[in-house]
Amino acid sequence: MAGASPSPQRVAVIGASGYGGLQILRLLQDHPGFEVSFLGGERSAGRRWSELTPFLPLAKDLVVQSPDPEAIAAAADFAVLSLPNGVASSLVPALLAKGVRVVDLSADYRFPSLAQWAATYSTEARQQNRNDDALCAEATYGLVEWAGDQLAGARLVGAPGCFPTASLLALMPLLQQGLIEGEGIVIDAKTGASGGGRAAKEHLLLAEAAEGVAPYGVVGHRHTAEIELLASRASGRSIQLQFTPHLMPMVRGLLATVYGRLRDPGLTAEDLTTLFQVTYRDHPCVGVLPVGTYPSTKWVRQTNRALISVAVDKRTSQVVVMSAIDNLLKGQAGQAVQCLNVMTGQPQETGLPLVPFYP
Amino acid sequence: MAGASPSPQRVAVIGASGYGGLQILRLLQDHPGFEVSFLGGERSAGRRWSELTPFLPLAKDLVVQSPDPEAIAAAADFAVLSLPNGVASSLVPALLAKGVRVVDLSADYRFPSLAQWAATYSTEARQQNRNDDALCAEATYGLVEWAGDQLAGARLVGAPGCFPTASLLALMPLLQQGLIEGEGIVIDAKTGASGGGRAAKEHLLLAEAAEGVAPYGVVGHRHTAEIELLASRASGRSIQLQFTPHLMPMVRGLLATVYGRLRDPGLTAEDLTTLFQVTYRDHPCVGVLPVGTYPSTKWVRQTNRALISVAVDKRTSQVVVMSAIDNLLKGQAGQAVQCLNVMTGQPQETGLPLVPFYP
Amino acid sequence: MAGASPSPQRVAVIGASGYGGLQILRLLQDHPGFEVSFLGGERSAGRRWSELTPFLPLAKDLVVQSPDPEAIAAAADFAVLSLPNGVASSLVPALLAKGVRVVDLSADYRFPSLAQWAATYSTEARQQNRNDDALCAEATYGLVEWAGDQLAGARLVGAPGCFPTASLLALMPLLQQGLIEGEGIVIDAKTGASGGGRAAKEHLLLAEAAEGVAPYGVVGHRHTAEIELLASRASGRSIQLQFTPHLMPMVRGLLATVYGRLRDPGLTAEDLTTLFQVTYRDHPCVGVLPVGTYPSTKWVRQTNRALISVAVDKRTSQVVVMSAIDNLLKGQAGQAVQCLNVMTGQPQETGLPLVPFYP
Amino acid sequence: MAGASPSPQRVAVIGASGYGGLQILRLLQDHPGFEVSFLGGERSAGRRWSELTPFLPLAKDLVVQSPDPEAIAAAADFAVLSLPNGVASSLVPALLAKGVRVVDLSADYRFPSLAQWAATYSTEARQQNRNDDALCAEATYGLVEWAGDQLAGARLVGAPGCFPTASLLALMPLLQQGLIEGEGIVIDAKTGASGGGRAAKEHLLLAEAAEGVAPYGVVGHRHTAEIELLASRASGRSIQLQFTPHLMPMVRGLLATVYGRLRDPGLTAEDLTTLFQVTYRDHPCVGVLPVGTYPSTKWVRQTNRALISVAVDKRTSQVVVMSAIDNLLKGQAGQAVQCLNVMTGQPQETGLPLVPFYP
Repeated sequence: MAGASPSPQRVAVIGASGYGGLQILRLLQDHPGFEVSFLGGERSAGRRWSELTPFLPLAKDLVVQSPDPEAIAAAADFAVLSLPNGVASSLVPALLAKGVRVVDLSADYRFPSLAQWAATYSTEARQQNRNDDALCAEATYGLVEWAGDQLAGARLVGAPGCFPTASLLALMPLLQQGLIEGEGIVIDAKTGASGGGRAAKEHLLLAEAAEGVAPYGVVGHRHTAEIELLASRASGRSIQLQFTPHLMPMVRGLLATVYGRLRDPGLTAEDLTTLFQVTYRDHPCVGVLPVGTYPSTKWVRQTNRALISVAVDKRTSQVVVMSAIDNLLKGQAGQAVQCLNVMTGQPQETGLPLVPFYP
Repeated sequence: MAGASPSPQRVAVIGASGYGGLQILRLLQDHPGFEVSFLGGERSAGRRWSELTPFLPLAKDLVVQSPDPEAIAAAADFAVLSLPNGVASSLVPALLAKGVRVVDLSADYRFPSLAQWAATYSTEARQQNRNDDALCAEATYGLVEWAGDQLAGARLVGAPGCFPTASLLALMPLLQQGLIEGEGIVIDAKTGASGGGRAAKEHLLLAEAAEGVAPYGVVGHRHTAEIELLASRASGRSIQLQFTPHLMPMVRGLLATVYGRLRDPGLTAEDLTTLFQVTYRDHPCVGVLPVGTYPSTKWVRQTNRALISVAVDKRTSQVVVMSAIDNLLKGQAGQAVQCLNVMTGQPQETGLPLVPFYP
Repeated sequence: MAGASPSPQRVAVIGASGYGGLQILRLLQDHPGFEVSFLGGERSAGRRWSELTPFLPLAKDLVVQSPDPEAIAAAADFAVLSLPNGVASSLVPALLAKGVRVVDLSADYRFPSLAQWAATYSTEARQQNRNDDALCAEATYGLVEWAGDQLAGARLVGAPGCFPTASLLALMPLLQQGLIEGEGIVIDAKTGASGGGRAAKEHLLLAEAAEGVAPYGVVGHRHTAEIELLASRASGRSIQLQFTPHLMPMVRGLLATVYGRLRDPGLTAEDLTTLFQVTYRDHPCVGVLPVGTYPSTKWVRQTNRALISVAVDKRTSQVVVMSAIDNLLKGQAGQAVQCLNVMTGQPQETGLPLVPFYP
Repeated sequence: MAGASPSPQRVAVIGASGYGGLQILRLLQDHPGFEVSFLGGERSAGRRWSELTPFLPLAKDLVVQSPDPEAIAAAADFAVLSLPNGVASSLVPALLAKGVRVVDLSADYRFPSLAQWAATYSTEARQQNRNDDALCAEATYGLVEWAGDQLAGARLVGAPGCFPTASLLALMPLLQQGLIEGEGIVIDAKTGASGGGRAAKEHLLLAEAAEGVAPYGVVGHRHTAEIELLASRASGRSIQLQFTPHLMPMVRGLLATVYGRLRDPGLTAEDLTTLFQVTYRDHPCVGVLPVGTYPSTKWVRQTNRALISVAVDKRTSQVVVMSAIDNLLKGQAGQAVQCLNVMTGQPQETGLPLVPFYP
């Protein structure tokens, strides 16, 4: 808490009543370096926060406002956008022009060009008439552990969501060191139902989603392209991989079980665990478990921590990396706060819970 | 119901109050061809069934008895054993000698030799002094869809459990036709908590297992050997694969997501779906879904049906087969009844629910 | 199964893809006396059933049709309506006029007059211009165990829903015998989320409803009036009671915990258990548990059975009656089939599951 | 955080690896005024904490020790005991004699005399040969909001558990003001499965407890006596009430729905809500909701806050008070820390989370 500035920075939260927004508000409430100064939302504009959300009182009982860039810039130094894909880009250019630094939780600024974004988000690309290619090129990919020095000074951050976060934290050390083959990588991911958002959809009803497990988006899920982009960048080769998400009967939590073939079959789980520990040594939001201890998503529930475990099967030369996060924190809103911390020169974990209440 | 014999066959259920036993009793209650004539159990011996299980009244309110082979043989033509690994083999020789035909739900008779069994179940092998190698060789592996003609006349059946059942139903068509490579097969499996049995264990408490997902038995889970044995037999090659089970926060259900590399990259999901449909055409306990429809374990909850879907990723030449079952029915007790049906000349699905109550 | 007619009666299911409709279809699939001959639904009209619901194949793969009375009457002898309150009454007069006998699962025909209905369902009364007062007076209240002889010949049945069913099965024996005081009755009810229906609503999302318990409709829930109506009729006095529903984090199941003051403080739990057993002796869809055994909703999951237990506190002279049902079967669709059974002269439990798959 | 002492007080946590212990450790980790200096436990004595609980790293990686009073007193100023009923009293006299102040989470010091304790905890009374009647008389009942001035100087606190806490926070304002009748009070309580502790028991397995709701301990549950004791003390009359706990299919959370008859039928929900707000004005761990807003246990999950709502039914003159807490925090470990705060002159809510991560 030593890093807290004398007067906290002002943050606008746009999309406040969705799950991403709720987490941001909850995190900033305990944060020594930020204060929430603007609540933006279309659906609930004009309503007082305390009516909307009696269980999450804010220090100031703000009224939710329509997210007008002028009003946001008047009230805030930073904006965190938790909006549907395609919508964020209609706000961002104006915000940046007015000097507001932005962390965007949508996919709008995760690709280095509009063309690459539009290739994956074709429906949104048809609906929005985007021409902010330069911003796509400028934006920093906000996976803090791998973002490098660029993040500290960034005006615009495209923060990755839950699947890429868990997957990339598991893959990057192996790819960067060239330890696994580029072909045959399998990411079998499991996510809680809150990953589908707060808008009511039949398949996310408790009656539908409880007491069952099902795959979805098999072959061609949108996050495949994003993961491959970063994986290719890290390894210096073009990586194509198999990504399959599954819906779990639980509220929060995400586990990526990542399979790859070792190039050097002599490597052991202990070797790789050491590599991971060294890689993430200065990153308190990632923990590496001892060999033979496997993470439950429950161990990171309501924390901004990823827990990773590495196993090796000597018979098959396969490495299995298990990576557990809270999909709404390290996989969404916590990551945004972690970005804000770096952007303001605070220690990256400032104000972020790293230890769970168990069970 | 046309296949019902005039007088039903008598079945002894040993291990009656565990989850496997409860399912057997429930299934046989509606079965036109069998009646439960003996309840065996050590823990609850001497107690009346109606006291033990007020919610599952039986036609006859039997008293649970210690599983003495003499008493079993006097009361029953068939015995279904739902006992811990290693324990079944202490009963089976005597039962067979007295003319009782046996379906065993443990792993004791799933391997063709004692040596292969002992290699995987080494702890049990040290505890039990087995010398029934001939029975291991004689026993039929009770995955009905792939058991062949031998099952009808079998005295002794080792019925596979939930993981091998879901995995093999997905893999066998591909391996038998030589459509996927023998290397790089990944089985990522997800099971409900009832798969861990009814004996109280800390990690299976609701407080521990709910609201979380975790891998376990990573690299070297015992079912790996069993799956590889059958897979190798089907493909005529020695198959080594990666099998990783995960514990899901739900009561029942199991999903195996199976990944393999196609030998012929021109094959489509439609081609393979047709192959699966043809393969399982005469097997009403397996359904093959249209391309693009993925199974939820909820769709097979409390049924003896497996639902399978096949996807192909042209970019990576990977095939993804998703296979959903109820771990306690098609993955355990329902399979035993399906075996009994074939052993007595009844249609294999007799008395077995194939359609769920949804949700 | 002896009671099955030589040729099954034809049933139209209107509102087929909601939870009520799905249960009806599932139940009738195993029923020896009925066949589904018409599927009605606005939202999915024109679509083939097998596409809509791949996990619940029907004997005939019907196309869902708009619920036109003419078409229904041409295809069916009976109709089960699973429609929103107020909507059923726009179909029923025409159906009856064409000779179709109707079981309605909405509240439209549960009150003996339009005025009483409109007093409770005022919103719906403003939207619908009902003038079928005579049908309200004619309709039979379809709680089979208390419906009396009238049900067998009824043209129109208003079947009670989950809360009144569980509550009244617990209260009626006490009220009819005058054993509890008319004042101070408390019904504390707990229901699974499927009771809220299949239409997507935010508060029923898994992310919202899991891992939490909350009351709703406190003071003045609509079912209060319906329960009081029947309770008053049984006791010959005007009964006013406290009914509080709670939403449980589970899919199916409903428990009503009913509290009342005994008039004769000398009565014991054993006395009252005997009374309940005698009352429900000829009703196989109600089970009365021994004193000291309390029902879990899980013991009746996916069955059409109510399980009831009675406790007495000598210190306070209070009786506590616990009544567990499956909200979608005995609390909705199973009750409809039970009504149809009686209306066609079959044993009331024909084709209805009474024993659960546990766990 | 201004209230933090320059050097934190040292706390011993006995029963560290149970759910109560885990919460204490988690709470104290963020607490400015305390540090954990001793971990006690029989089962895990001799083992390093980081091995036992890889997901909850402590500032100091202590070794768990057998709870010897000498060793505890050497290491700690305060002890929090999370032990089975009857066991705490074998440690407490020695701890107090050595100057350690104790907060006990068992029932051992919640009754003002050994006789009253033994009347309710007769099994434990037979096993333990207690003669610490004077300590029973001395101990303070640690429901902070109602404990009065005595708590600040207490050597020994018997902290109430989850059911009495939720029930008494709802009842006390009404009883103290004499607003409800002494007869006919009903407490219908719903608790998550973690309330049953971490020791493995069959009925608390996920497979058993998920997807079901059931009453238990109907008539005569041990907490009845404790609630009545405090209720009688507050009202100046002898209160006998009906308390019925129910097991919910969730990990954490407890809801008490409390029913009572108003003496003055003219009182409204608004009147009573004002009374509750005034009563708890200076108690930040209790929130009173506006009329018509009902608490979900999810709104207080992993917080030390109780949320209360009051409804009145004019027709029946019944008041319904709904009281939601997290059973492991405000209902157990959080309450202990709240007591420690008061005992050390810190604001009662110091270091305690009051706002949830939702969902």
